[in-house]
Amino acid sequence: MEPNRHAAQFAELIGAANVLTSPEDKAPYLIEWRDLYQGVTPMVLRPGTTQDVSAVMKYASENGLKIVPQGGNTGLVGGQIPLENGEEIVLSLGRMNKVRAVDPDGFTITVESGAILETLQHEAEKVDRLFPLSLGAQGSCQIGGNISTNAGGTAVLAYGNTRDLVLGLEVVLANGDIWNGLRTLRKDNTGYDLKQLFIGGEGTLGIITAASLKLFPKPKKLEAAFVGLANPLAALKLFSKAKAQAGPVLTGFEIMPRVGLEFCVSHLQGARDPLEGTHDWYVLMELSSGSEAFPVRDLLESILGEAFEAELVEDAAFAQSMQQVQDFWHIRHGMSEVQKEEGGSIKHDVSVPVASIPDFLAKAIAAVTEFVPNCRPVPFGHLGDGNIHFNVSQPIGADKEAYLANWDAMNEIVHGIVHDFNGSISAEHGIGRLKRDLLKGVKSELELDLMQRVKNAFDPKGLLNPGRVL
Amino acid sequence: MEPNRHAAQFAELIGAANVLTSPEDKAPYLIEWRDLYQGVTPMVLRPGTTQDVSAVMKYASENGLKIVPQGGNTGLVGGQIPLENGEEIVLSLGRMNKVRAVDPDGFTITVESGAILETLQHEAEKVDRLFPLSLGAQGSCQIGGNISTNAGGTAVLAYGNTRDLVLGLEVVLANGDIWNGLRTLRKDNTGYDLKQLFIGGEGTLGIITAASLKLFPKPKKLEAAFVGLANPLAALKLFSKAKAQAGPVLTGFEIMPRVGLEFCVSHLQGARDPLEGTHDWYVLMELSSGSEAFPVRDLLESILGEAFEAELVEDAAFAQSMQQVQDFWHIRHGMSEVQKEEGGSIKHDVSVPVASIPDFLAKAIAAVTEFVPNCRPVPFGHLGDGNIHFNVSQPIGADKEAYLANWDAMNEIVHGIVHDFNGSISAEHGIGRLKRDLLKGVKSELELDLMQRVKNAFDPKGLLNPGRVL
Repeated sequence: MEPNRHAAQFAELIGAANVLTSPEDKAPYLIEWRDLYQGVTPMVLRPGTTQDVSAVMKYASENGLKIVPQGGNTGLVGGQIPLENGEEIVLSLGRMNKVRAVDPDGFTITVESGAILETLQHEAEKVDRLFPLSLGAQGSCQIGGNISTNAGGTAVLAYGNTRDLVLGLEVVLANGDIWNGLRTLRKDNTGYDLKQLFIGGEGTLGIITAASLKLFPKPKKLEAAFVGLANPLAALKLFSKAKAQAGPVLTGFEIMPRVGLEFCVSHLQGARDPLEGTHDWYVLMELSSGSEAFPVRDLLESILGEAFEAELVEDAAFAQSMQQVQDFWHIRHGMSEVQKEEGGSIKHDVSVPVASIPDFLAKAIAAVTEFVPNCRPVPFGHLGDGNIHFNVSQPIGADKEAYLANWDAMNEIVHGIVHDFNGSISAEHGIGRLKRDLLKGVKSELELDLMQRVKNAFDPKGLLNPGRVL
Repeated sequence: MEPNRHAAQFAELIGAANVLTSPEDKAPYLIEWRDLYQGVTPMVLRPGTTQDVSAVMKYASENGLKIVPQGGNTGLVGGQIPLENGEEIVLSLGRMNKVRAVDPDGFTITVESGAILETLQHEAEKVDRLFPLSLGAQGSCQIGGNISTNAGGTAVLAYGNTRDLVLGLEVVLANGDIWNGLRTLRKDNTGYDLKQLFIGGEGTLGIITAASLKLFPKPKKLEAAFVGLANPLAALKLFSKAKAQAGPVLTGFEIMPRVGLEFCVSHLQGARDPLEGTHDWYVLMELSSGSEAFPVRDLLESILGEAFEAELVEDAAFAQSMQQVQDFWHIRHGMSEVQKEEGGSIKHDVSVPVASIPDFLAKAIAAVTEFVPNCRPVPFGHLGDGNIHFNVSQPIGADKEAYLANWDAMNEIVHGIVHDFNGSISAEHGIGRLKRDLLKGVKSELELDLMQRVKNAFDPKGLLNPGRVL
């Protein structure tokens, strides 16, 4: 590569101010927030329009330059960080952050891909609507990245993954062509649904420059309960009952083990046990409705009352205020960070069929405990989506480094069990660089071959985010 | 082709009884139910297992034989009927109709693709669940065909299109390879979502042999109102208000013009005008909930009360019994067939962004009325999905044949307006053979090229349903 010549050409195309080459200017784009990756790049490009992106890709394609699209740089699998070899150019979508249209009657919003997730949430709220995608990084992640990784988050149970929220996309292809698939239609059966390939495509098939997304009624009433139970099977039965009775009004159903709650009570500012007795497992259950008329609290009490009669539930605390709802969620959201205080933690972001959660947990807990005696499994997460963050804390007093040396071996054990349940080794976070090699172990050769055929069809020169996913 | 030799080979593979070659045996597979197409085929193959389908496709691929997959043969665009040249072999999935698993706790069902849609509905009901896909042909259409055409129907507003109901697929590819994508996961971000290509792929990319699908809570309460309004803008505003307040509880929102209601009252057995006065437009609005606790009737009355105050609504009749709910739907469902009694009708299955419905209707009605003075537009359908069946009845007393000679020209006018609104010329029914040529007029060259690249990647020899879609 001749970086100086290319930088000058890119400056012609999108303006010199938008071609960053100095180390200090490039630095924020090269550091992964968990310090797992430190990238190297000759330059960071910051196009301001779809035409800019098109011009960049046309030039890149003609010159065989590899491009790493980057949104808010909050990804968890290294997909957005250039390789250490310095051969990849970063294309940041951050300047393309316009809200193009908000349509409250049609329940849609159209934005450029660099718009911050929180901006979408606020724009929706302004017109009494909800954009339901919600996750920890929402203050800095960008919608283009959310779409490219098919982000999950806490609202999947009622509203689906990001994929389910997308109506249309505008995409710049590897050769610079602009595909205008920016539709706001609820029904359209005119050929293959191409947008689905770019959703969750992790920037390897095209660069999303704008999106039309679904909006929903803004919830007007919200209730939550913190429930103590004997085991995951009781939690599954409670979930089944709750979903049957509340349907889409059931907007949260999170499972947590006793040890996780203890970690929170010990280490998390403001956290206290909502229940008086001790229970082996807990569920945080939330119901909400866009209708003022819905007796959300009555329904929550009725579901838990029946569950108590059926001996599924040992005890339950109802939130008496919005503050208390937040206190319950504070425990759930804190469950990841408190694990740091207990030494090393080996992590898995997995999913299995919802009804297999109890069996999966039993097998996986037994297996890791056999592998590292006295380790402390802290499996928690979105039971209603079948998505468990299967984290395993080190034995009390063990050496952290020595424990973490088990990471790959424990991953292999847990992923093997996930595979037996026809589950997924990356429920939310994608593949990127981190799980690329793992993919070969869990996908059939045929499926990998089909994915490669799609890649070849859309990016024959292999310039877009090479070495990610495939 | 040497049909006798191939038939003997196929008989070896899947049994002689499952290779139909006599005219009377083949006949039911060759007639399209609206008599638009009459196909010719050397044989109809009826595989009984996924392995059978795989063996058939392996042989077909090796011998360059073209295959037309067929489900319940209820398609509306000729995709399932072999060409008149007799060079295509029909592969019927009807024998593959097993229900493989029903999981009420996980809210999933797994079936083979030849299962009748009504069978899925009944299987769900047995475990107090709902499989929401619902359409006129449900007693004979097969789920594989529903998935291959991404069927719409009457429950899209609350539950989405068929695409939104699919969790996983098993597919036999053009060369006979079996892709096992039969997962029941709610979250899985391990690479490209390949199943999306087969959904709505109209059998051109692979043959779906089994599917895992979502179930929902069974509705326990259902209410409906028949509403008189001045114009489509009032209907849109009512929709917006209703969706904001009822959210997913709003399960039906259908618009109909006065002339359509008059046709029904004149020609449809058992239909009567639910309202005393006359109104230019009508809306059938349905609310339902899986929760006994939801005050569905109160909410419906409250929404319509507010709409009345805001002068959006002129009058409304509330169904006082399930019989009356059915009477309201009887009018809506009868609106297509009664048009036959009024002479020729030129039809369009189109969608536009929901908020564009009033403008679209105004322009399209003006345009067709200018084109054929005194014609009678009867646009009706799923306002909440932006999907209008824009049917136009002949002028009173006109010659039917002469009127129907305007079909293509009127299509062109209406589709042009649809295109101006960034809409779709096939909202529900797909492309098949009927709309293949129209596709070139409404899709960019780039989009058609991308579709062709996908086709080449999955079916390089072009053996699966050739000449459909692309």
